This record gives sequence, C-alpha cells and structure tokens, in this order.
Amino acid sequence: MKKKAKAVEVNMENLLRIFTVPEAPGSTLSRLENDISANLAGFLQEHIVAEETDLVEIERDFSDTLIPEQPVYVSEQTEFLLDKVVAQSVHTASPSFVGHMTSALPYFMIPLSKIMIALNQNLVKTETSKAFTPLERQVLGMLHRLVYDEPEAFYGQWLHDSYRHLGAFCSGGTVANITALWAARNRAFGPDGDFPGIMKAGMYAAMRHYGCEGAAVLVSERGHYSLAKAADVLGIGRDQIVAVETDDSNRIRPDALEATITRLRQRGIRPFALVGVAGTTETGNIDPLDALADIAAAEGLHFHVDGAWGGPTLFSERYRERLKGIERADSVTIDAHKQLYVPMGVGLVLFRDPAALKSIEHHAQYIIREGSKDLGSATLEGSRPGMAMLVHSALKIIGKRGYAMLIDNGIDLARRFADRIESLEDFELVTEPELNILTYRWCPAAAREALNEGDADSCRRINETLNRITRHLQKTQREHGKAFVSRTRLTPERYHRQAITVFRVVLANPLTTDEVLRDVIDEQRQIIAGMGEHEDVIELNRLLGSPVA
Amino acid sequence: MKKKAKAVEVNMENLLRIFTVPEAPGSTLSRLENDISANLAGFLQEHIVAEETDLVEIERDFSDTLIPEQPVYVSEQTEFLLDKVVAQSVHTASPSFVGHMTSALPYFMIPLSKIMIALNQNLVKTETSKAFTPLERQVLGMLHRLVYDEPEAFYGQWLHDSYRHLGAFCSGGTVANITALWAARNRAFGPDGDFPGIMKAGMYAAMRHYGCEGAAVLVSERGHYSLAKAADVLGIGRDQIVAVETDDSNRIRPDALEATITRLRQRGIRPFALVGVAGTTETGNIDPLDALADIAAAEGLHFHVDGAWGGPTLFSERYRERLKGIERADSVTIDAHKQLYVPMGVGLVLFRDPAALKSIEHHAQYIIREGSKDLGSATLEGSRPGMAMLVHSALKIIGKRGYAMLIDNGIDLARRFADRIESLEDFELVTEPELNILTYRWCPAAAREALNEGDADSCRRINETLNRITRHLQKTQREHGKAFVSRTRLTPERYHRQAITVFRVVLANPLTTDEVLRDVIDEQRQIIAGMGEHEDVIELNRLLGSPVA
Repeated sequence: MKKKAKAVEVNMENLLRIFTVPEAPGSTLSRLENDISANLAGFLQEHIVAEETDLVEIERDFSDTLIPEQPVYVSEQTEFLLDKVVAQSVHTASPSFVGHMTSALPYFMIPLSKIMIALNQNLVKTETSKAFTPLERQVLGMLHRLVYDEPEAFYGQWLHDSYRHLGAFCSGGTVANITALWAARNRAFGPDGDFPGIMKAGMYAAMRHYGCEGAAVLVSERGHYSLAKAADVLGIGRDQIVAVETDDSNRIRPDALEATITRLRQRGIRPFALVGVAGTTETGNIDPLDALADIAAAEGLHFHVDGAWGGPTLFSERYRERLKGIERADSVTIDAHKQLYVPMGVGLVLFRDPAALKSIEHHAQYIIREGSKDLGSATLEGSRPGMAMLVHSALKIIGKRGYAMLIDNGIDLARRFADRIESLEDFELVTEPELNILTYRWCPAAAREALNEGDADSCRRINETLNRITRHLQKTQREHGKAFVSRTRLTPERYHRQAITVFRVVLANPLTTDEVLRDVIDEQRQIIAGMGEHEDVIELNRLLGSPVA
Repeated sequence: MKKKAKAVEVNMENLLRIFTVPEAPGSTLSRLENDISANLAGFLQEHIVAEETDLVEIERDFSDTLIPEQPVYVSEQTEFLLDKVVAQSVHTASPSFVGHMTSALPYFMIPLSKIMIALNQNLVKTETSKAFTPLERQVLGMLHRLVYDEPEAFYGQWLHDSYRHLGAFCSGGTVANITALWAARNRAFGPDGDFPGIMKAGMYAAMRHYGCEGAAVLVSERGHYSLAKAADVLGIGRDQIVAVETDDSNRIRPDALEATITRLRQRGIRPFALVGVAGTTETGNIDPLDALADIAAAEGLHFHVDGAWGGPTLFSERYRERLKGIERADSVTIDAHKQLYVPMGVGLVLFRDPAALKSIEHHAQYIIREGSKDLGSATLEGSRPGMAMLVHSALKIIGKRGYAMLIDNGIDLARRFADRIESLEDFELVTEPELNILTYRWCPAAAREALNEGDADSCRRINETLNRITRHLQKTQREHGKAFVSRTRLTPERYHRQAITVFRVVLANPLTTDEVLRDVIDEQRQIIAGMGEHEDVIELNRLLGSPVA
C-alpha cells in the first residue's frame, strides 16, 4: 500500500482511469466493500471505536481547508476514511443504540443502494430518470393507499396522471412538512378575483387581500421543531406556529385548541392549517386525530398529520387503530429512513386530494414542461436521487406482514421494558410507551417518596439534582460506548410542569432484545454505584436525609 | 432462482434474517453488485435498453398500488429491478448522453457510497454522526476557501466553531438557493427595536414594520427556475423575483438592473437580494459578477451567486477569471452532484460571513442544543445522510489539478465542437460556449440566407418550421437511444427575440470525445435525410423555394 510515497501524476490519461478502471479486487477499497457485503455487523463492530473520543480531538483530523493540488491515491484516502471517519462514526445499527430514530438496515439495502448510485438517475425530469418516474409514483401510490385506502379505480385514474400527484418524495421529514404547509398556505390564500394568489403575489399582498393580520398553523407544544422552521421559511413567522397545550400523555387538548383558534381569530389572524402529531419525537404519543379532523373540518383548516415516525404503525393490525383519523388528513408525512428501514435521506408527504399539489406547481417553460410527467414540478427540491427504488424494494421484500411484525415487535418490547422499569425500585418510568418510545430516569425509592410527600420547593430541589445526575449518567454511558440512550426534558403534570431530564429510548431496531435493555439498566446502575463521591449524589443524599447511592 | 414459487413465511426469525444474514455470494443481487464493481460501463451498456420505450408502456409495470401482504424474495425483486427499472433507466453515464448535467461518476464513488450507506449516519446531530460533523465542516471550509480564499487564520478560527457556519450542505442546488435567499431575507428584515424580526413575526409584520409594499429579488431572465420556487416558498411571491433583461450573451444588463431597482423602489418594494448566475442552465453563460457586486454594495443588497453549475470553474487556472467577482458574493451555491462528480443528492451553499446563517438558526430546546456542534441548526433540512464523505473523497482523490483538467477539458471540447458547427453548411451555432454548454440547430445554408435577407414575417415562418424540425430531430434521436442532446428555447437578438428551439449540449463527461460529438451530428443528418416526406421539411422547402433536405 502506498503511503504518500509519491504523488499521482496528473494528466488526462490518469484522470480518465478513475472514470473507466474499477478498483482492483485486492485494493483497500474493494476489500472494505467485500467486508461490508460479507458481514456488515462484524465490519461495524470491528472498525467503529466504541469508547468516545472528544469531538475537539476528532476535529484535528478535519482541519485542513486546502484542497490538495495533487491527487491523493484512492488507497490513501480509503485508509484515512477507515481510521478517521469510520472509526469515529456512530454505531447506529447497534442493538444497544436505542437513543435515536436511526436503526439497523436490512442487508439487501446495501447492494441495492449501490445499484441506485451506479445508475445515478435524476428524478427531476423523465429525461434523466425514465422508469424511475413511474416507480416513484407507484411508491407514492402504495403509501397513499396504506393511509387513505381509496378504491382501485382512484389509483387507476390518478397514479400516473401528468397533472396530478398523490404526494411528493423529499430528502426527509422536514422538507415533507414544509411541502405540506406550503401547499396548504398556497391553497388557503389562492387566486381570488383579481388577486393572483400568494404563490405569485407573496405573503404581504395575500394578507392584505384576504384582510388578515397574519396566518397561523396550530400544533401541540410537542410538535417537531421542523414545523417552526417551516413557519419561518414560509414567511408565516415562528410566532404563528401556535403551540397548543397537551394533556399528561403529551397529546394536544382539543378544548385548548378551540380556545386558541378563537383567540387567534379575535386578533385577526387566520389559522389555515392544523397539524396532528402521530408519534411525538420525544415520547412517541399520538394526538387524537379523529377529534382534530372534526375541528379542522368545522373550522376549514388544512389537516396535516406529521407521521414521520408513527406513520408505518398503519401496517400493524394490532396497533393501527391508534392512528384512527389519519385517513381524514389532507396530508401526511412519513419518513422512509425511519420505520420503513431505508437508508438516510428519504421522506415523503402524501396528499389525499391528487390536485392539492397544484397550488405549488412550478414549470420552467422549456425544462420542466407543463403536462410532462417530470416530477420536478411538484417537489420543493429539484435534482433528486432515485431513492424510490429502495422504498419500493423494502415494501416488496418486507411486505405488509413483515412491517406489521416489526412494528408490533417494537411496541411490545417497549411495553415490556416499561413494565420492567415500573417494577424496579431505583428507576422511574416517566412516560408510558404508546408506540415504541418511552422515557424514564434513575430515581431511587427514597427520592420518589420525598417527591410525593415534600413541598413544592423541596421537590424542585430534588428534581434539579436528579436532572444533573441523569445528564451525567447519560453522557457517561454514551462515552463508554456500549449503549446509547438519548436524553430530553419533559414537563410532566405530576411534577407541576417542572422540567425533568429523562432518558429517552426508541425501540425500532429489530435486533434489540429484552436482554440488551436489561444491560442498559445494569450499566446505568454501575455508573451510579461509582458516583458515590459525586457532588450531585452527595447533594441528593443530603436532600433526602439518607444515602441512596 | 425462485420464480414466485412459494411465498416466504413471515415470522420474526425470517424477518431478522434480512437484518443479519448477508446476500449469499452467488445470489442474483450479489452477482449484480459484482458486475457493477468489475465493469460499471459494461453493466450499464448491457442492461440499459438503448431504444426508447414509451413511458405509458413502462407505467404498466408500476401500476399496482397494493403493498404485498407476503414478502417477495430478494432475488425476485432483484430480477424485477433488473428487467423493469435498470433496463428502462437513462444511461446518464454514456459519453453520448450530452443533454443534461448528469455525468459519469468516478469508479471509486461506487464503493465509497456503499460504505456511506452502510454507516447510515445522520448529520442532524453529532450524536448520530460524530466524525461526519467535522468532516462536513471541513468540506464546507475547503470549498469556502476555493471561493473566498480567506487567510489560514480565518479558517482556524471559524471552521469548527459551534456558533458559526461557513455554509450548509443541502440535497441539491434548489435547497441551496432557497437557503441563501432565506438567510438574506431574514437578515434584511431582522430584529429592530421592538420588532422581533421576520423569522418570528413573518413576512406581513416585517413589511409593515419596515414600511415596504413587498420584498424583491433581482436576477436575470436566464436565472434558474429554483429562484422563482424560492420566492414562492419564502412568501416573497414569484412576481417579486424580478427578471432583468439580458444581453445577446445571456448576461444580465447592469443598466437594466439599475433601472429595475429604481422602478421597484418607486413602487415601495424593497429589493433585498441580487442573484448573479455563474453558468446559466440553458447556455452556460456567466453574469458580470464584478459589476453586480458593485451594484449590490451600492444598493445594500445581499449578493448571491448561483454557481450550481459553473462554480467548480474556479479550479481552472485558465478559466477561473471568467468568474471574477464571485469572491465578493455574500453567498454562493455549488452543486456537488454536477461538476464535482459526486452521486446525485448533494449541493451546498457557502456564506462569506460565518455569522450569516445565524439569521435562520433553529434550536429545538433539547434536541439540537444551542452551542452544540449539531449541524441541524443551520440547515433547511433535518435528518441528512453523510454525503460529505463523498465530496471529501472527490476533492482529495481528484485534487485541484485534476478538477482543473476536467473543467478545461470540457470547455475546450465545447470550443472545438462550436468551431466545427460553425464550419458546417447545414448547422447553425446559436450560442457560443462560454463554459462547456452550447446550443445549435440544424439550419441549412439556404435557410440561413433566407433568414438574413427575408422580411420579419417570412423569417418568423421559417423559424417556426425549423423549430418543429428541431423538436422532431431531438425526439427521434432520443428515441433511437444512441445519443441524447436536450432542447430548449432561446430568444436571440439576431432573430428579433423570436423564440428559437435549439439543441443544448452539456460537455461535462470526461469520456465524451470529438468523435462522439461528430457521431451526434452525423446521426442528426441521417434523421434529416430520412425526413424528406415530412410535412415540416416539405413546408421548409416551400418557404425557401428550393429543396434543402
């Protein structure tokens, strides 16, 4: 292997080689590739360094901003990637990585992705995508049907219609949510008499034409931050994403919603969209979608469901009922790189009405021609890769029953883990899993007793100390690199809405077992056991009047 | 190989297999993968059907919207993809596919992409990306330096600063352009006294606070359609993307620009951004960036350069001068999946001022924590794949000199092809290549004579007939599947701004040679030769008074 021995000579002939001559079978890169094909889990296990390195230290390897004058050998770059990038990446596929929404991938995704990359199609136009265009439309149709279950004839009529779209592929849930609210905004403030519509005239002219002081979107206080981002991007303003109060299960309160609508209208602000959350990011709870659909219908609001996480629960015979009302949504976001088990970089938004995307349609007179099948006309993004091929393959190879089983498995596992936590003396379940997400914290019996019995002030101090301990525990466990739970802050009613730091566990990796979760708890206990001299533990002992750890 | 013989039994054990057991070395999918590794060009050549199938016919294979209840074997799905998707995809890597901006990929991209997919990192948070975060920042720094060439100390200070960003990775140039204008909009209408800024208050309140009747973005009439989309998305309105007249080289006219600014101001509309195009999509021309920078500075406008296509010309010692003034831009879009030769799905936007992205920064209180290095705070998108690894590798393995050679090669090839067209009796060069894009049409000498000498009316009729012939030629050639040029419509001054349909040739594939281009012309001649009975040719002969084809 070359070790910066001598530089590659730069001439056109050598340059053409990288476009025409494949990596030799024995090269470092080919070897890595084969290792991944043969044993992905082993490859990741072997190459990713478990113990955490400080980010500042890692940054040293990525601090040179000079693009090298002379090319670097592929083998040299591969060695670099292996040592510095792969080694210092996150083992998202690990069964004990249960802190975020990124999971293991089915094996077939890796070679299929390679085919997709090799074909390098661009979905913006059929001239650069051909079969990928109907393929993408088919996938949108399949997921549209999963959500809306329209009759066969509906799909026969609209699936491949040049002037209609059952949804839009996006790079992720954020763009999907923006697309939904963009379409809703443009529809709510569309052309009217002489007014050419907000698409052409902009937000200011629209507000004046429609006589409003502003436009608002309603969502529970547990809505994803992408919605605030959407409001900023769309010129609505973050303050007009109006956060509606939730109940103790993190679900929007319909009474509070009605009151908010009234209040906004009194101020001359027109609410035009209501977002129901189907799987809150932090706790996996689902808004009462049917009640929201009623309110949206009565108030004339676009009803969007953010099912980025929870959407695929529809596959489950046992749990799909929890999403009841989603079929009444005007639009639904689903992330394929979450519970459809597709690699990072694909979300989508479905629209019940195949004409809904008309309100955002853009044509470049001679590039994305009107009436063509070019998908670029109805997406926020322009050039896009053929990720639809991966979603298509996942839907076929895993199938409805397979997905149902994956969903059920995660929810059941979460239930069992919740039950176990509840049975433990030294841990407290903070939110019950409605889907496959739960939160908990270390909270010994004595602390719970004190919290139940103490006055507001002493409760506050105990919780603040516990919060610091939870943070320390979570960070330490992450640094050890065996397991990863994330952490967030909640404001449960039982603690008078005081902010509580909790561990958050997301159970979507089918390789995660009860035993893996038991080990997570055991490791947390070990860390606590070693914290006897820690100032926060000392403080807790002092507050409780007896040693708890 | 299984042929729908019997269904896979769905149980958890079988399901776990797809997450744990790799494709067998002899399986269909592994075979395909190996074929791609061994000989990508051969694989594409062998599997992609050259002759065009009607899209409506292709759609039949993608019309079922039922997600199968039972899983389908991986081998069965692979066969389907091979027969119906790969076969009917577009051979974007072919040296004679010179109609769009999608090119061949360097070989090393394929295995590297596989590693990226296998790692499945999510750049939104360091907790799901670790080393990929500094890696992405480094790539932004490298390209920032290519454009702005700040001193070493600048990069030492800001490259990895948690509160600063040298740019943002995006899924493509459209999101990059939206991001630039979003940041510009939020800066122009930022917090001011009691006014909390447009980010929070929205467009309507901002216009009222700043006493404007609207906000406008200026760009030449040849600007990319993503800018109109951006104006719609951002609540500015498409009508406020004000298209400024161009000269006969498709470059914005500074005098017309000044006049437009005055006109807008008279109407109470505040222009806040000026976009310079560095490589128009249709003709590859570059606006006079230095003159635009002067005007932007004098008028207090955010100066954005859309270098999605032309940005990498900066690598070329010989041609970088053509982009002079780009270093004065406030922001610059570059598409990595175009002339950086990275697979589809990555563009980026650079900001001269590392604090510029502050104006769009979003924090989710406990998910993307303020002061963390999480990249999700300063991008339009949320979850994003680790494409930075591919850009990093391309910059290293191709190097500055390599890119310079690729750029020079394309521009030189375009020049030679233009010279050749000019030397031909029966073809007309419509736009000179400033970069590696040119347009031309079939236009026999007799027609050119008649166009030069005839009155306006007869010219119009000749051009209309030629337009139909050009369309027919382009479609027929595409259908034959040997070569692909795209077509567009231009309004050249020499034909009194009448719309002229032209062939558009983009020369970025290093495998495209003079000979390949000669064959393109030869095939077009053959098609014309076979069109003797075609109504448009008969009409042309009639208009010219003599048979030309």
